[in-house]
Amino acid sequence: MPDAYQQLIQINTSKIVMVILDGLGGLPCVPGGETELESADTPNLDALAARSSLGQTIPLAPGITVGSGPGHLAIFGYDPLENEIGRGALEALGVDFDLTSDDISARGNFCTLDADGSILDRRAGRLANELGLPLIERLRSIQLPGAEVFIEPIKEHRFAFILRKSGLQANLKGTDPLQTGVPPLPVMAGDAASQPTAFLMNTFIEKARALLKDSQPANGIMLRGFAKLPVILSFKEKYGLHAAAVAINGMYRGVSRLAGMQVLDVHGSTLADEFDTLEHAWQDHDFFYMHFKKTDTCGESGDFEGKMRAIEEFDALLPRLLALEPNVIVIGGDHSSPAVMKSHSWHPVPLLLYARTCRPDGMSQFGERNCAKGSLGTLPAMQVMPLALAHAGRLEKFGA
Amino acid sequence: MPDAYQQLIQINTSKIVMVILDGLGGLPCVPGGETELESADTPNLDALAARSSLGQTIPLAPGITVGSGPGHLAIFGYDPLENEIGRGALEALGVDFDLTSDDISARGNFCTLDADGSILDRRAGRLANELGLPLIERLRSIQLPGAEVFIEPIKEHRFAFILRKSGLQANLKGTDPLQTGVPPLPVMAGDAASQPTAFLMNTFIEKARALLKDSQPANGIMLRGFAKLPVILSFKEKYGLHAAAVAINGMYRGVSRLAGMQVLDVHGSTLADEFDTLEHAWQDHDFFYMHFKKTDTCGESGDFEGKMRAIEEFDALLPRLLALEPNVIVIGGDHSSPAVMKSHSWHPVPLLLYARTCRPDGMSQFGERNCAKGSLGTLPAMQVMPLALAHAGRLEKFGA
Repeated sequence: MPDAYQQLIQINTSKIVMVILDGLGGLPCVPGGETELESADTPNLDALAARSSLGQTIPLAPGITVGSGPGHLAIFGYDPLENEIGRGALEALGVDFDLTSDDISARGNFCTLDADGSILDRRAGRLANELGLPLIERLRSIQLPGAEVFIEPIKEHRFAFILRKSGLQANLKGTDPLQTGVPPLPVMAGDAASQPTAFLMNTFIEKARALLKDSQPANGIMLRGFAKLPVILSFKEKYGLHAAAVAINGMYRGVSRLAGMQVLDVHGSTLADEFDTLEHAWQDHDFFYMHFKKTDTCGESGDFEGKMRAIEEFDALLPRLLALEPNVIVIGGDHSSPAVMKSHSWHPVPLLLYARTCRPDGMSQFGERNCAKGSLGTLPAMQVMPLALAHAGRLEKFGA
Repeated sequence: MPDAYQQLIQINTSKIVMVILDGLGGLPCVPGGETELESADTPNLDALAARSSLGQTIPLAPGITVGSGPGHLAIFGYDPLENEIGRGALEALGVDFDLTSDDISARGNFCTLDADGSILDRRAGRLANELGLPLIERLRSIQLPGAEVFIEPIKEHRFAFILRKSGLQANLKGTDPLQTGVPPLPVMAGDAASQPTAFLMNTFIEKARALLKDSQPANGIMLRGFAKLPVILSFKEKYGLHAAAVAINGMYRGVSRLAGMQVLDVHGSTLADEFDTLEHAWQDHDFFYMHFKKTDTCGESGDFEGKMRAIEEFDALLPRLLALEPNVIVIGGDHSSPAVMKSHSWHPVPLLLYARTCRPDGMSQFGERNCAKGSLGTLPAMQVMPLALAHAGRLEKFGA
């Protein structure tokens, strides 16, 4: 089916905005009660819902809880099963590192080893950022034959590690044994094609240990989440859209960059700052992805009230989006994060689709119960982009 | 899944009627208002809905607007992506031409050329039918080496063109440049396998031009929509059904013939004439497809009121269908055609399924909002036939 869509793409001057309220879907905190979204006071969303079609998306498949990477790929219209983004690649994308298809990325972290090489602290005492930077400079001096290495600080003990050499494969096991008192594991290849990569990684780790041996508490490193970047079509190639991303957190910026979006600078860290960015760039793009993190952060920390407030914060700013008069507005999420579960969940995610051509379903509140009864039905997240394109007049008729 | 269904087919004496109100799905003409179907006064449909299950079908995939060809294939249970019917083949089927799998069909039309061979009128002044017939006789005299040619008048300047020769391929570009003042294009092959076909087509066009050179205003021809017929299982092979089609317009008769249905003669051109045909043939078949065109014609011309009236016209005749006491009645559409859009659209299509075994969903009006909430849910059109077969007792249990 993806190919069929692509043949039907036509270009026009319409604008589409997709707002992802991260982890939007919720659960009541008392049996039969209201969810975070249903409890929130959202006059603007409700008024928009009355003019919109509602539905609920299934990120990957019923019962499957997704991470933010696959959740975003799905709602962007890419099959997350065919395009797995490893954790290492997400981290590298998240620090705005310009990954190539040759690169093997990993999550790196400093650790504390004892004299025998056993782990004393898997996170090197959550090393302060300023202590990590000179150590990263030291690691950058390490040479590997025929390969380039890039190391980018993330936060505290964590860094992104990128090995660049043509033809490398990334079927590798990480070195963190997830316990103290034992040495880090060597990098093990899961297949013959990944053996040369394992060798280079282990060589690097040995050289790092030699260089860091006097740098307590960060006298060792561990690598995990080895990944090559999946190669996916850009939004331009796939949909004919000049897409832009308005997102603050690294990973979401990274996934957008992977999809070929121009990742816009947000000056500040609030929702209002994101709206500033949207307004400023409005003339330059025909598709905007806006990401709001707080809904998920509150969901994952079990803060029902906080998630409600985050939704209300978005609701209060929604008129700024409406004032731009996009042709199509999609408001949804990458997955559910019910506060009562303190985690991501598999529950379907509320979806609102506004366009002049949407068939209103007579519901005037944006919430889980209404979305489950909405005229868009319960649909795979991957089908949201085709619907948005259709309502934007960007899909030709199929067949006579 | 199609194969799984086929293994379960069992035969009985039940009768199924599938009514396709072409382009049934609509949109309100004011925000939040009622659609054509919702506004129409349909006491008989509403009473039937109260005893039926409702749902909405997606012809091909969310967001995809289909033509009538793929829309019908889908609701007949064939995958429109695997079985594409080109326009030329549809036209030939539509004039009751008995296409074989060797044939390459095209839409043909007379045009007016100037002395230099440039197009003056792409439709030869919409040549009167009686003027076209002798010219078609003249074209029929043209011989091509090793091939047969068939030409069937359609209407005014249009005719169906069929080239029959074993092993031909149809990846060809049409000759209509879609503008005047330039000569028609030559037939161009899109791949090497289609080169011999292009050669034969161009030879025919040259010979036609020589034969027609004194026949103003129809002194040239153009061909487009080249297509071979997809080979699909008949309703008998696929479902064990002796199917009949009650349709007036050529294309719908053609698609039915492709699916192996017996296309019944309708004496007249009204809905009532179609009901006459149905009643007359009632004993001879166990599946009837009835097609009503006016809903789509009004939708495509932006006539909201007309579409309402067409639905009401069907509603008034519905008791004649009910009096035959079919075991299963399906009332739906091949796609939506909202009058406000003046075109086909991608919106889901209302579906009503009546049978004694249907689970009523407590809704007593047949309309888009109710269908979106119906117990059949939002389902691919391809799943309607299996549901109809099940309710007709024509599908065995799978597994013990």
